[in-house]
Amino acid sequence: MLKIAIVGATGIVGQQAIVSLIGHPWFKIEKLVASERSAGKKYIDALKDANGSSRWWCTEELPSDIANMNVEEAASFDATSVDIIFSTMDAGAAKELEPKYAKTTPVISTASAFRYEDDTPILVGGVNMNHAALLAVQQKNRGWKGFISPKPNCTTAGLVISLKPIHDAFGIKQVFMVSQQAMSGAGRTPGLSAMDMTENIVPYIPGEEQKAEMEPQKILGEYDGKTIKNANFSISATCTRVPVLDGHIVCAFVQTEKKCSAEEVKIAMAEHGRDFAELHLPSSPPQLIDVTDDPFRPQPRMDRDKGGGMTVTVGRVRKDSVMENGIKYVCLAHNTKLGAAKGALQTAEYLVKNYLKLV
Amino acid sequence: MLKIAIVGATGIVGQQAIVSLIGHPWFKIEKLVASERSAGKKYIDALKDANGSSRWWCTEELPSDIANMNVEEAASFDATSVDIIFSTMDAGAAKELEPKYAKTTPVISTASAFRYEDDTPILVGGVNMNHAALLAVQQKNRGWKGFISPKPNCTTAGLVISLKPIHDAFGIKQVFMVSQQAMSGAGRTPGLSAMDMTENIVPYIPGEEQKAEMEPQKILGEYDGKTIKNANFSISATCTRVPVLDGHIVCAFVQTEKKCSAEEVKIAMAEHGRDFAELHLPSSPPQLIDVTDDPFRPQPRMDRDKGGGMTVTVGRVRKDSVMENGIKYVCLAHNTKLGAAKGALQTAEYLVKNYLKLV
Amino acid sequence: MLKIAIVGATGIVGQQAIVSLIGHPWFKIEKLVASERSAGKKYIDALKDANGSSRWWCTEELPSDIANMNVEEAASFDATSVDIIFSTMDAGAAKELEPKYAKTTPVISTASAFRYEDDTPILVGGVNMNHAALLAVQQKNRGWKGFISPKPNCTTAGLVISLKPIHDAFGIKQVFMVSQQAMSGAGRTPGLSAMDMTENIVPYIPGEEQKAEMEPQKILGEYDGKTIKNANFSISATCTRVPVLDGHIVCAFVQTEKKCSAEEVKIAMAEHGRDFAELHLPSSPPQLIDVTDDPFRPQPRMDRDKGGGMTVTVGRVRKDSVMENGIKYVCLAHNTKLGAAKGALQTAEYLVKNYLKLV
Amino acid sequence: MLKIAIVGATGIVGQQAIVSLIGHPWFKIEKLVASERSAGKKYIDALKDANGSSRWWCTEELPSDIANMNVEEAASFDATSVDIIFSTMDAGAAKELEPKYAKTTPVISTASAFRYEDDTPILVGGVNMNHAALLAVQQKNRGWKGFISPKPNCTTAGLVISLKPIHDAFGIKQVFMVSQQAMSGAGRTPGLSAMDMTENIVPYIPGEEQKAEMEPQKILGEYDGKTIKNANFSISATCTRVPVLDGHIVCAFVQTEKKCSAEEVKIAMAEHGRDFAELHLPSSPPQLIDVTDDPFRPQPRMDRDKGGGMTVTVGRVRKDSVMENGIKYVCLAHNTKLGAAKGALQTAEYLVKNYLKLV
Repeated sequence: MLKIAIVGATGIVGQQAIVSLIGHPWFKIEKLVASERSAGKKYIDALKDANGSSRWWCTEELPSDIANMNVEEAASFDATSVDIIFSTMDAGAAKELEPKYAKTTPVISTASAFRYEDDTPILVGGVNMNHAALLAVQQKNRGWKGFISPKPNCTTAGLVISLKPIHDAFGIKQVFMVSQQAMSGAGRTPGLSAMDMTENIVPYIPGEEQKAEMEPQKILGEYDGKTIKNANFSISATCTRVPVLDGHIVCAFVQTEKKCSAEEVKIAMAEHGRDFAELHLPSSPPQLIDVTDDPFRPQPRMDRDKGGGMTVTVGRVRKDSVMENGIKYVCLAHNTKLGAAKGALQTAEYLVKNYLKLV
Repeated sequence: MLKIAIVGATGIVGQQAIVSLIGHPWFKIEKLVASERSAGKKYIDALKDANGSSRWWCTEELPSDIANMNVEEAASFDATSVDIIFSTMDAGAAKELEPKYAKTTPVISTASAFRYEDDTPILVGGVNMNHAALLAVQQKNRGWKGFISPKPNCTTAGLVISLKPIHDAFGIKQVFMVSQQAMSGAGRTPGLSAMDMTENIVPYIPGEEQKAEMEPQKILGEYDGKTIKNANFSISATCTRVPVLDGHIVCAFVQTEKKCSAEEVKIAMAEHGRDFAELHLPSSPPQLIDVTDDPFRPQPRMDRDKGGGMTVTVGRVRKDSVMENGIKYVCLAHNTKLGAAKGALQTAEYLVKNYLKLV
Repeated sequence: MLKIAIVGATGIVGQQAIVSLIGHPWFKIEKLVASERSAGKKYIDALKDANGSSRWWCTEELPSDIANMNVEEAASFDATSVDIIFSTMDAGAAKELEPKYAKTTPVISTASAFRYEDDTPILVGGVNMNHAALLAVQQKNRGWKGFISPKPNCTTAGLVISLKPIHDAFGIKQVFMVSQQAMSGAGRTPGLSAMDMTENIVPYIPGEEQKAEMEPQKILGEYDGKTIKNANFSISATCTRVPVLDGHIVCAFVQTEKKCSAEEVKIAMAEHGRDFAELHLPSSPPQLIDVTDDPFRPQPRMDRDKGGGMTVTVGRVRKDSVMENGIKYVCLAHNTKLGAAKGALQTAEYLVKNYLKLV
Repeated sequence: MLKIAIVGATGIVGQQAIVSLIGHPWFKIEKLVASERSAGKKYIDALKDANGSSRWWCTEELPSDIANMNVEEAASFDATSVDIIFSTMDAGAAKELEPKYAKTTPVISTASAFRYEDDTPILVGGVNMNHAALLAVQQKNRGWKGFISPKPNCTTAGLVISLKPIHDAFGIKQVFMVSQQAMSGAGRTPGLSAMDMTENIVPYIPGEEQKAEMEPQKILGEYDGKTIKNANFSISATCTRVPVLDGHIVCAFVQTEKKCSAEEVKIAMAEHGRDFAELHLPSSPPQLIDVTDDPFRPQPRMDRDKGGGMTVTVGRVRKDSVMENGIKYVCLAHNTKLGAAKGALQTAEYLVKNYLKLV
């Protein structure tokens, strides 16, 4: 069993990382690491708020052995004490601490701090695992024994999985998209206000559209042995917040280079990722994309947990009524599973098996 | 005071029509008309369900004089007993009964039954009141003393008001749009299921996208004295249902013929409809479009009731990142006020004053 | 493996019964049975609505072998073709058909049709399994080889589990209770209206208070070898509907015969049902009641799935400020698991093992 | 017109006070007063958050003359510059500043700081206006020209109005109650978390039960010319938070001294407050309690705005099944209107007219 540290363990993404790792066949949670405020406490005590109420926000029960672990401090954490670091810190702390850890130890990160560096891939399971080779460039450039491997933005994660088979089969020219994003994406401290999010929509998420308009081209780009050449298409996004707990919807309008029918797109999507699924990574679903013909689907509450929260559901695939070679569809991905901790864990599994060859 | 009959008075749109007419300076509710099931009962008794509970669904109180009116039957209703008929029947009943009424009496309709007839305009306040002249063609064609004047689909209503100033100033080439539609749009008998609509999105509304993709071109078309020549642009729509009570959001991506900046579009929108507002129709708001710079607006719950539910709120106006001459924005309109009974009432007011010249 | 038929298989409780039986170690779903409308169709086709959308309402995936089973008709169903019948019909159909089935075959029922018959126990796991002996009286009375064993009302189910240890240790004198009941309790055809249940409370559930005020005394009564003598206390209930998907909250005020402290009640509850848990029935949780000291719990969304939806969570146990020997607390139970299909399944497991001795 | 200052003007209760005072026939908002952070800014600028978004949380539009008023600082505010002070500060600031203001100027307060002082009444419109005489004792005791008149807790406000006619006609012996309180009661900075309050109930509100168990006895007590003798009954409360925007539900079980039927209680409630209504105070509703026979009412969203948010709706009045002389019912009051700013305003109107005799 490989020893894992979760850094940022008291936050919601850290909690989800813990849940994703319960009963994992390869990884064992060896260390829980957090900020100075929590350091030195038992994990369960670090979770208590001023009222004595627990800030364990997952509906899965917290295992008692984890509850009783001692929390270490991120700033002084000895990265060599574990095999892999799972970083769920926010971007500011990640920027400072992840490079320190990466000197000696592989860092899988849910933060955006290093996502846009030239020598850093944004790995997405079943989409661009060949970009993992760029990590060697990163290690060489920076003189690190470890590396930093960030996951994409949670909205990008689902979208890019749906775009990959289209891009491969027909080429993408341009994309218009509107996201309807779940509230869990805004975190928990303090997160969104109940008064704002009751029978209401908030049509803006600061910083989100830029990420959605920029990340897919890198993820779908080509690695030439030295760097990634971004895919050559543009995206226009409007990102909105909706009163849904988990599961980001993207309504996409895609213009392709080559002519394609709705039926062809559905087949390409349904067949996507077979090779990747056959690696049988512990967190991978049997099917990367589930294409449905039920016009009322995907629905966040009904479809987000498919494949353990790792399957993207695509519905309403049909010809666009405006663009030549246009296709439109609705896709759904679980933002805190595929789009966060568990998606990062899947990447960790791939890297451990195929890049580091530790299992 | 002109005498009005509300046909379909027990339904939710009929109820909203009643609310819109309370205290109206020109119109008096003379008759309440409904299906055979309700006919012959006092209105308040016709609203009672099997449990003795009232199906008066408006939060405004039902005035006691209305509550005590006798309900007449739609099939045998004498249209000559009133000056104006306000029809809120569903499309099937409207198709059959509205032409009978129109033989003698003007019919303002919230139904879609006659919306797509060549000799019938779809009138929207402040957008295409010159199309009212087509009603004379309809009257002549059909040998009617009255006419049928339908309102647009509730999603179209808000969108087309936001498109009008863009179309006039810069020309529209194509539109992509995603709607996030409130639950009240699905009616009440039985309407949507609470289990489906709790922390969930349903990405499909049967029939809605066709209407949204087709009606604006007619409404923004040119009347040449005989018929309407549709405006020459295309729309691609994805229409979704969200857990909001009232207020339809449309996220629009618009390509214009001429170059335009976000600032120019905002000015054109803010100035839109001044002439129409100056008619001071009782149901018209002082401002047809409220353009906001608060990036988190419009929000359905906070903005839908602006201008008595008759003002469209537009926010997030910005350049599109994909299209040449592209603009994107978010617009909100109250679907059961502007988009239904009160919007139709505003049209009735216009026609009574400027077409029929009765006030 | 014992062969089970699910009668009422297309309804929501039937669906939940299917989900509860997936991978069951003792039971195999042999037959799916429903009304004439569904009979003769493949199960998955019987679930399709007029729009071609699936009415499979569980978030768990429908296994393909179940999806492809043929649905038989309830009225003509051959009860001898299975070992156990799991009836999830509504009360009307249950009244007529369950006795026919019971002639030859044990019927476990979620319907209320026979709940109040003198020779019929209302069995609740860990509470009154000694009442199972009354089934022999029922069989003898009615000349049945099988029997009918109904579950309690879903609100009663959780309440009575929390009352049992109090009753045993301190005696119950009177109970005041307010329930806050989840929407799933109202079923799905059509179920509650989204417009009614959005940011709203409905303070009445027809028929519910009578059940809550009457069933616990029977369940906590004493079986004397011939009949059940009801426990001697009274309950006053107000039952309300709240915008929660699953999980019924009961706020209880209990006056006991003997003096008791909050601490003693908490201990009695925490220790409740050890013997029953040690039977290790497949659907039983390791702990029947989880007593929490977090004052903000139980919460439906966070606690309902504890113990596979079979653990009752009790919080806020404290002295009542009005009654001598008064205790108040808040309890939560999953209404469609413990309170419906899975609770009935647990009873089936007990009866099969300890009464019928078939496993 | 009397000059009013609103202290705590940027908070949600202060905003509601502003809304309640728009167009008021007797009062004119002369000063807006807030903490140091807002002082010196224009009101509309003081409302802007870090993102430039407005924290004006009311759906009513902010009038431009109010928007442009300058905010003064609470600590240094000159109380003699106005006729009446409307204090909506939190308890801490109120404790310190209200006595300073009261030296010269009447203070109507929504805070709890002075509620439990012996020389301070808790005035509720139509319930205990004779307690206003205690303010003279307060003025004399403390050497104040002004006074402090606090409103009750928002849950108490509605409950006590429903209890008053029962107490007067039949005497109250004991009360059990469960509240289902709206989210607006928790304020806005930050208020409740959307993730906590989505399809969920939180069964605890710190400090709330003590207030609900203690205030009604003082409010329904007798003023003997010197002090208030509390009414002699006890209350046991469980207070819960529900996903409703506005409107607190209380499910009450009341034991009376004298025998009474449900019908008698309904009549007593319906007739309650006639004298008070006849004072025609601007914020008073024509009917203090609306008694409904619709078993599905009151509902927060449908009934909270009745009488301008100042009418209490009572439904489901029926005999209690446990207590001798027991009655149970469900009552609803608007927590941020009757239960906060507008309720306090109604008291201000009474005091200005009948105690200060200024209008």
